[in-house]
Amino acid sequence: MTDKAAKTALTPATHTTPPAKFSHGVRKGNILQVAGQVGFLPAVEGRPPTVAGPTLREQTLQTFANVKAILEEGGASWDDVMMMRVYLTDVDHFAEMNEIYNTYFGEQGLKEAPAARTTVYVGLPKGLLIEIDALAVLG
Amino acid sequence: MTDKAAKTALTPATHTTPPAKFSHGVRKGNILQVAGQVGFLPAVEGRPPTVAGPTLREQTLQTFANVKAILEEGGASWDDVMMMRVYLTDVDHFAEMNEIYNTYFGEQGLKEAPAARTTVYVGLPKGLLIEIDALAVLG
Amino acid sequence: MTDKAAKTALTPATHTTPPAKFSHGVRKGNILQVAGQVGFLPAVEGRPPTVAGPTLREQTLQTFANVKAILEEGGASWDDVMMMRVYLTDVDHFAEMNEIYNTYFGEQGLKEAPAARTTVYVGLPKGLLIEIDALAVLG
Repeated sequence: MTDKAAKTALTPATHTTPPAKFSHGVRKGNILQVAGQVGFLPAVEGRPPTVAGPTLREQTLQTFANVKAILEEGGASWDDVMMMRVYLTDVDHFAEMNEIYNTYFGEQGLKEAPAARTTVYVGLPKGLLIEIDALAVLG
Repeated sequence: MTDKAAKTALTPATHTTPPAKFSHGVRKGNILQVAGQVGFLPAVEGRPPTVAGPTLREQTLQTFANVKAILEEGGASWDDVMMMRVYLTDVDHFAEMNEIYNTYFGEQGLKEAPAARTTVYVGLPKGLLIEIDALAVLG
Repeated sequence: MTDKAAKTALTPATHTTPPAKFSHGVRKGNILQVAGQVGFLPAVEGRPPTVAGPTLREQTLQTFANVKAILEEGGASWDDVMMMRVYLTDVDHFAEMNEIYNTYFGEQGLKEAPAARTTVYVGLPKGLLIEIDALAVLG
């Protein structure tokens, strides 16, 4: 890291082109920000973004994979994540999301404290049940 | 702060166990993130999380206390907070929340500029009227 | 930046007084946080906050101007922005917001990667269609 750190875009090969002039993730110095990710499958040229499936489980696991791909593109891992914001569309999904969340992070072999988290219930585009973004600070 | 700062969990004695694999707060280097806090009373072993009361005032003041406990656990204070995100469930609560907010922060003896803030209206689990999270940068 | 950085409030002359004890923006060291901005016109003494107009376009462009004023007050520019959070009230506004967003940022002459972004759909006070906040890291 130089005195004057540059901000670089993080665009994993698995990701669809953003629908607007924003980056899936950016890193500047030791700060890495992941944009709101949803359950889109890895991009296939010529095919529009396709959600992993209709269930909360399918979408949550794919969303985790999408966040992780951006972290890794920026040289970070789940251990560097300070905060995750989880947006659900339905309060009744909270318990199931937590089950999926706990199993997933139990399997990731975290070496440091798990990230802080906020979960709120909002509107999302039709068919999407979950969106997650993340702030990471590299060691 | 060493070259390779560790991320540590901030878990005040007053807090209930998080319902999933996340931390109430984390600190890494000079960055401290407080997870979404609600108006739960200090934890009592064997009792499920209990909200401070049904009113916005009771819940807001308890939520502030919960955020503050995490800040202090991490060696920070309200003066270090850069951003607070306030989630309300009802637009009609904005004016009352601001009154409570102003009185509370008027009494905290802030030495520096008050934090930035965003307030939006979302869904929260039944019985909860407010949720707040915070990002702090230590001096 | 000294060892012990102070947190300073960023209050552009164009801005109305915040309705509560928070800052429109704060900077501490190389971190700058912009509070949630809406489409209010530049403040006129004695006049209550007035929205730029009823359309998404008017409000979005004014909101961008308001965010930019705070960035500049803190010595930053759009190039320093890591994350923008866009709150809309209506999923049907997404495509139009993206058009306005792309045109606006196409004209800003960004030298670095565009910021990450999350867009969610929430409630806002009556008459407001968009709110945006931003986190910047200075070079």
